[in-house]
Amino acid sequence: MTRVSTTGTPHAGIPQDSGAPVRAGVPEHGRVPKYYAVRILLTDLVSELAVGAVLPTERELAERFGAARETVRQALRDLLLEGRLTRRGRGTVVAGPKLAQPLALASYTEGVRRQGLRPGRTLVDLRSWPCPPQLANELRVNPGEPVWHMERVLLADDERVGLESTYIAVARAPRLDVDFDPDSTFYGYLRDELGIAFGDAEERLETVLATPREALLIGTPPALPMLLIHRTSRDGEGRPLERVRSLYRGDRFSFTAHLEGDGQG
Amino acid sequence: MTRVSTTGTPHAGIPQDSGAPVRAGVPEHGRVPKYYAVRILLTDLVSELAVGAVLPTERELAERFGAARETVRQALRDLLLEGRLTRRGRGTVVAGPKLAQPLALASYTEGVRRQGLRPGRTLVDLRSWPCPPQLANELRVNPGEPVWHMERVLLADDERVGLESTYIAVARAPRLDVDFDPDSTFYGYLRDELGIAFGDAEERLETVLATPREALLIGTPPALPMLLIHRTSRDGEGRPLERVRSLYRGDRFSFTAHLEGDGQG
Repeated sequence: MTRVSTTGTPHAGIPQDSGAPVRAGVPEHGRVPKYYAVRILLTDLVSELAVGAVLPTERELAERFGAARETVRQALRDLLLEGRLTRRGRGTVVAGPKLAQPLALASYTEGVRRQGLRPGRTLVDLRSWPCPPQLANELRVNPGEPVWHMERVLLADDERVGLESTYIAVARAPRLDVDFDPDSTFYGYLRDELGIAFGDAEERLETVLATPREALLIGTPPALPMLLIHRTSRDGEGRPLERVRSLYRGDRFSFTAHLEGDGQG
Repeated sequence: MTRVSTTGTPHAGIPQDSGAPVRAGVPEHGRVPKYYAVRILLTDLVSELAVGAVLPTERELAERFGAARETVRQALRDLLLEGRLTRRGRGTVVAGPKLAQPLALASYTEGVRRQGLRPGRTLVDLRSWPCPPQLANELRVNPGEPVWHMERVLLADDERVGLESTYIAVARAPRLDVDFDPDSTFYGYLRDELGIAFGDAEERLETVLATPREALLIGTPPALPMLLIHRTSRDGEGRPLERVRSLYRGDRFSFTAHLEGDGQG
């Protein structure tokens, strides 16, 4: 049994893994909350196991670490939120690496395919509404003019990984509700059916907590940290095209970018 | 007094703010946890107040919403984690918008300046270590060769907003510990003192929870969702230059990107 200690300096110095936090996250004064000491032991255990390996039960872990079950549960919760672990049935297993979606790709579909996974989408809602003022401004339509709201759950190999809300003026895609297969790519539809090319887009990325509705739709624990991307895109002629709100599971997604520098400090 | 209801469909339909979640996050079945119902009322209150306005006390809010103080505290905690509210002294005030840092900019300094704020950095640690194998591979040096680890707290207008760990071979910057002013730009130093130009970089962005050490250094609540950026950069000749791990407060930072499309679906 490895009794947890809440003082001491495990892993002092430079981390073996350059992506790991310095000193395994332990402050210089050496004291950490008890659950965090268990988390360090649990992280060591997880790093020795293969992806998909089943973790011992909470009770077994509590015995092994000489800690209370509630303490073990809190440490497990952290690693679940961060995507190091995942639930499978009633068990907890070691998760694979997060998906790494290139930010420069407009298309979710294409990004998921490049990672060797099968993209999918499930329609939650598609209907037209009178455009509220702020959105009207972003889409450069008149307030009150009809605008589509299309909401889809995003899938990767049948796993629910995100939720996407697209807003586009009905005038731009009048037959969206009858012509478009929701389990296909929207940009493909715009291009092939309507002759509208995706031009460019401004994106803003932040972390937010899942709302109860979002957690239910995506099947995550409530208050899971999510990555939210706001997008405003223009067509090939530079006219505003759509406003998209894409929410991705923070435990399953990362985004990659390539930077070209100009030598600035 | 506005008594909270945990059923009903507040804000059904298209959100007024196109960045807001649909139906204010309430599932179609209309039931939400009690704290979330309070959160909705609290969000409405916050949206009516100006940035910097002081919120009523927990007790006053509990009375106003007809909810338990613990319930109010949980709703406040959510909005604090998301950066809608912030602590000031013993009070809770409405927070300003998150900083919007262009991802394409290599330089933290330049990004913060563009937003009209004053960048700063406080040195936490600077010393050389034998390079561990994985990092050696990323920096293309021999394992065990000396490598600098420089850790700095990032400031914006004297507020602590992030934590940056830079790893660079000692051979590339032998006098870093004596020549470099830690409260200045590292890329500026490389360029002006050593004639090394920043070339390009690969970045990966994800959301993680702050460790106790990080929370202490940045002055955030523990387990605050953070934005973590991994960077591997090359110099102007394409040689590996540095490995950087940058952690930004999720309640204070967002990242922006510009996308050029090729019309792919």
